[in-house]
Amino acid sequence: MSLVIAGTMAFDAIETPFGKTDKIIGGSATYAAWSASHFTKDIKQVSIIGGDFPQEDIDALKNRGVAFEGVEVLKDEKSFFWSGKYHMDMNNRDTLVTDLNVLEKFNPQIPDSYQDCEFLMLGNLMPSLQRQIINQLKNRPKLIIMDTMNFWMDIAMDDLLETIKMTDVLLVNDGEARQLSNEFSLVKAAQKIMAMGPKYLIIKKGEHGALLFHGSHVFFAPALPLEEVFDPTGAGDTFAGGFIGHLTRTKDISFENMKTAIIIGSAMASFVVEKFGTERLKEITQDDIMNRLNYFVDLVNFDIDIV
Amino acid sequence: MSLVIAGTMAFDAIETPFGKTDKIIGGSATYAAWSASHFTKDIKQVSIIGGDFPQEDIDALKNRGVAFEGVEVLKDEKSFFWSGKYHMDMNNRDTLVTDLNVLEKFNPQIPDSYQDCEFLMLGNLMPSLQRQIINQLKNRPKLIIMDTMNFWMDIAMDDLLETIKMTDVLLVNDGEARQLSNEFSLVKAAQKIMAMGPKYLIIKKGEHGALLFHGSHVFFAPALPLEEVFDPTGAGDTFAGGFIGHLTRTKDISFENMKTAIIIGSAMASFVVEKFGTERLKEITQDDIMNRLNYFVDLVNFDIDIV
Repeated sequence: MSLVIAGTMAFDAIETPFGKTDKIIGGSATYAAWSASHFTKDIKQVSIIGGDFPQEDIDALKNRGVAFEGVEVLKDEKSFFWSGKYHMDMNNRDTLVTDLNVLEKFNPQIPDSYQDCEFLMLGNLMPSLQRQIINQLKNRPKLIIMDTMNFWMDIAMDDLLETIKMTDVLLVNDGEARQLSNEFSLVKAAQKIMAMGPKYLIIKKGEHGALLFHGSHVFFAPALPLEEVFDPTGAGDTFAGGFIGHLTRTKDISFENMKTAIIIGSAMASFVVEKFGTERLKEITQDDIMNRLNYFVDLVNFDIDIV
Repeated sequence: MSLVIAGTMAFDAIETPFGKTDKIIGGSATYAAWSASHFTKDIKQVSIIGGDFPQEDIDALKNRGVAFEGVEVLKDEKSFFWSGKYHMDMNNRDTLVTDLNVLEKFNPQIPDSYQDCEFLMLGNLMPSLQRQIINQLKNRPKLIIMDTMNFWMDIAMDDLLETIKMTDVLLVNDGEARQLSNEFSLVKAAQKIMAMGPKYLIIKKGEHGALLFHGSHVFFAPALPLEEVFDPTGAGDTFAGGFIGHLTRTKDISFENMKTAIIIGSAMASFVVEKFGTERLKEITQDDIMNRLNYFVDLVNFDIDIV
């Protein structure tokens, strides 16, 4: 009855208009696990790291209930490293360095102890690796949620489509939804993408919120209007972690509960951008989360009584 | 106890990726009046037109309860004309032609029959003209709402600030809010702008919805995810007309009721973009509006119950 999260665990070096970091801990599976750990203590990580990945960061996640049996450690090699620079609007970033390092050798193996997986979150990875993970699970999880990016649409579209077909919930941003569907209208794009397989589609629009599509239904979750976005790195993965964390906790995959899950994902994303890296995800409490959720209620709650 | 709407009544020629019009009826006061006329039948228009403005369009608005005593007609001159072309994303447009024509001679005079004005909407105009209208009203309206644009920030900032100071609700888009405040964060921008005078600030974000600020409160209204935006011309004025129309009808200027008014404005804007010009605003019924409002309720309604 657990949540399996697959993705990268990495070092990031980040520059924003507000500051600059040396190498800090990042990666899609790191952000997602920290975020989900506020909702469930039964998380099983699938990733690959080098001998340089700090033991204290592994221990911190283990203390939050994250299992590491599925995390391969290549002792004499380096962890994946990404470096990027954000511009003033925070929606655009330049990648300065991408050192794949251990990621070039990633050949995910699902341990037996992970076979009770009920919820599977596939962070952004090569689509064939995402598929390899699905295929290693003896019983299909109750829900498979998959993140991806435009890079795979450019170089491995057929492979990507094959993996998308196997998933229940696809997560993309607005640009990726347009690229994948060849439709400019997000409503039309959503219909085309759901016809590729996923019953649910989440289109992330960064500071403009997120849309959840299911059949002819649409739900919109705003992003919190923030005084400052300090560092947007990991916001999408944190969003996904909050989303799947809530579904895992409640074991309810109805559209109604997915709406709540999207608001929770948005709330978690609104925290992570307040400081560099995963720092805020480590320090926030259940009360902080509840207060922020109430803020979302106030933000969109209105009465219609015009007749 | 009426609503006075001041602004342009004009001809537009529009090109979008979906089609092209000859000269059709447009102008900020035209869109706002058509939109507001779904909520109140006591609208008093302030504008200037040439002898070329079609009598049937005047009559159609008169039939909706719009008074024309404050609309100056210069029989031998031409109405204001604007022509523009939209690009695929519909958020950017190129102005092809701007013929001010009668607008160069606009010297608004408020008729005595308009002096019962309780709600005043100032569409985008030269800020000194907007101020001239406020100053001609013997009793200050219950609520003054003002639209403006970046053009006046470029060429008449002092004048603009003087007018903004006199208003209750300022309407700008996100780029204009940033330019006016010199702040990138919309939350910070809002605080600075409200310190300039208006107790309420609405920041329109086009397809990304609208934010209403009041003190430390924020409310967010999404834009409806549409299959196609056929022609965005007049969406902002239609939004404003729906907003002030609802406030005029209910005579309730509380923050709570303004939230509802913003949703209504968003609903009206979602109609107007479906066809060229004011066409949709002329044909929709109360049932159409109610159905669309229910769509907004579904779009953002969620339960929070995570403890």
